[in-house]
Amino acid sequence: MKKVAVGQAGGPTAVINATLAGFVKEVERDHSLLFIKNGYEGLAKGSYYECDKEMLKSISLHRDVPGACLGSGRFPLTDDHIESGVRRLKKEGVDALVFIGGNGTMEALKKIDREAKKQQYPLQVLGLPKTVDNDLGETDHAPGFGSSARYVAQATRDMSRDLASMKNFEKVRVLETMGRNAGWLAAASGLLQQYDEEGPHVIAIPERPLKKETLLEGVTNALSRYGHATVVVSEGVTWSEGSQVQREIVDGRPVLGGISNEIAAFLKKECNVMTRAELLGMNQRSFSAVVSDIDREEAYTVGRVGAEWIRDGLSNVMVSITRHSHHRYTARMIPVQLEDVVKAGERVMPEQFIQNRKLYYEWLKPLIGEDVSIYPPPLKGDEVYVE
Amino acid sequence: MKKVAVGQAGGPTAVINATLAGFVKEVERDHSLLFIKNGYEGLAKGSYYECDKEMLKSISLHRDVPGACLGSGRFPLTDDHIESGVRRLKKEGVDALVFIGGNGTMEALKKIDREAKKQQYPLQVLGLPKTVDNDLGETDHAPGFGSSARYVAQATRDMSRDLASMKNFEKVRVLETMGRNAGWLAAASGLLQQYDEEGPHVIAIPERPLKKETLLEGVTNALSRYGHATVVVSEGVTWSEGSQVQREIVDGRPVLGGISNEIAAFLKKECNVMTRAELLGMNQRSFSAVVSDIDREEAYTVGRVGAEWIRDGLSNVMVSITRHSHHRYTARMIPVQLEDVVKAGERVMPEQFIQNRKLYYEWLKPLIGEDVSIYPPPLKGDEVYVE
Repeated sequence: MKKVAVGQAGGPTAVINATLAGFVKEVERDHSLLFIKNGYEGLAKGSYYECDKEMLKSISLHRDVPGACLGSGRFPLTDDHIESGVRRLKKEGVDALVFIGGNGTMEALKKIDREAKKQQYPLQVLGLPKTVDNDLGETDHAPGFGSSARYVAQATRDMSRDLASMKNFEKVRVLETMGRNAGWLAAASGLLQQYDEEGPHVIAIPERPLKKETLLEGVTNALSRYGHATVVVSEGVTWSEGSQVQREIVDGRPVLGGISNEIAAFLKKECNVMTRAELLGMNQRSFSAVVSDIDREEAYTVGRVGAEWIRDGLSNVMVSITRHSHHRYTARMIPVQLEDVVKAGERVMPEQFIQNRKLYYEWLKPLIGEDVSIYPPPLKGDEVYVE
Repeated sequence: MKKVAVGQAGGPTAVINATLAGFVKEVERDHSLLFIKNGYEGLAKGSYYECDKEMLKSISLHRDVPGACLGSGRFPLTDDHIESGVRRLKKEGVDALVFIGGNGTMEALKKIDREAKKQQYPLQVLGLPKTVDNDLGETDHAPGFGSSARYVAQATRDMSRDLASMKNFEKVRVLETMGRNAGWLAAASGLLQQYDEEGPHVIAIPERPLKKETLLEGVTNALSRYGHATVVVSEGVTWSEGSQVQREIVDGRPVLGGISNEIAAFLKKECNVMTRAELLGMNQRSFSAVVSDIDREEAYTVGRVGAEWIRDGLSNVMVSITRHSHHRYTARMIPVQLEDVVKAGERVMPEQFIQNRKLYYEWLKPLIGEDVSIYPPPLKGDEVYVE
């Protein structure tokens, strides 16, 4: 029997609690648990929840609830915090430390592993992946992304239909998705597009600095053909001459957002039409009503598999989702070294997906799950004019 | 057999096409149809779609698609437009004119009726209601509102859970809903709230000018009790000393929006915590994945009933939804005079609903439909601190 400490870190997803529930259900049979409160902060300050029946029941009930039920958040984890945090885990007799998180978390776990070795403390360290914007490396994708992609694709298609019917008043919408360094989510906005008239007509991703002339060409093209244009941009998009747009800096971390406003202002000026910017916002990571069924299932499985690896003694690894086949989607979970995840850094879209969006959508399609409705072509009637 | 012209006007809803589909399916059996393109603009300029099998099929396929498939939009309809529009309908041999719309539409129809009488032209005039923010009078509610309310309630609950888990980084969220003069949608944000810790902790509606001290008290209260606070405001909210916040004026019509930014800036300054403002945006009227089943059904029925009334010769009326019982929700459709709808003006929340939100939620509950998931209480563990 091991003593296992588990926490959630970083921005939550709509399925991060499913991973916790899967992990806890499987691990609590044979091991004792300690829950870390508010992510790294709990580790740094030594604040935990005890494991009792009520906790186990509550975590199980949170399986389909968005947000991180243990608390996650952001906390600037220093080397001192890591040193004292590890000492505290040792003192508590913790055998294994598990965090559900993204890039920052895998890096933190790697440092924690190093510190434990330094303290000659045999701590088992395991990372369970979560992401909204799919920027985590060494895995096909991570839980959370499929649901966000589904939300972005559905919202874009619906807003584009709405805009089409309003085109004598409002002609351009600029939608901003999450994605600080990677365009996976913004590019997902076109997944459900079936007809040229439907948006998105222009997609801008951080991997490609945005040229004003390219943007303008795409928009004026759509305006002249359809009378309306939908543009989708990642929050991390930069103008080809310029820098990222920041709203503010909190705890040394820039809060992005606002590029859609800049783009809308530019298009309004150039095209002289009513233009609206809109952030797709927090719904991207929290709107639980459209969670992808496959995403939820995989999130749970990632937790369950992590628990098995705790038993098996794997350490210094992250659970990675490996895709078996493109055609009939199947995946299995394999261990990857934390070191490799950290080295891979923030994962951007591969060139082949940027250059061939159809290829990207074939890859993406199974991740957004079932039951997405199909829309008919935009209505095209025979027009008559009465004098 | 009558010749019937039908159009959609104003901002669309996620179910405005269901009303069109219900109307067209029922009316096309016995009558001929002409479709008005882009709302009032089509009327003013005489641009229509002919009715053929393709059109009928397309409209039927659009039943569950957001946006107005005939085009709606905004168009400043002048007396000259009405005069020439009516003359054109007369020339075309149109017997009945039907618009799916809100307050502005019912007023326009009333004027059209007057103009037809002036031209000694026996035009049957019928209004089919639609609204997002429930500001249409002389009806219990109108199609479109239930789905928007559902969306707002779900998004608020989910964002509040997300915020709770991020509270060591971000503490206050200010969500802005539609509602220029009426607070129905903003107030709906609390419908699914089951626990005090869940947001919304403060709701601001246009019916009550917002006092800075009341807002601040609500937010600091929530911050001290739960460590986070969710505020929901209608776009039309005004400070108790001040005016509405406008983004711009298009065609003489102010585009509201931005009060959430003002409120967030105020709270950030007063409470000195990370605060985010977010517009719930176009999803409120277009996000079709969470449409209320009862709303969609009623939207369709409103169309079907309108078609029956065309046959029966009712004129100068709007289809009104009358609620039979609070306990087991049932409703029937009755005609109300367009004149009375116009006189009623923009319908704000009644005092009893403002003062007793529970009463409002009892009224609202059946309109948002089935299959809304229940969340467990926020996790409360026994905390332990390790030195």
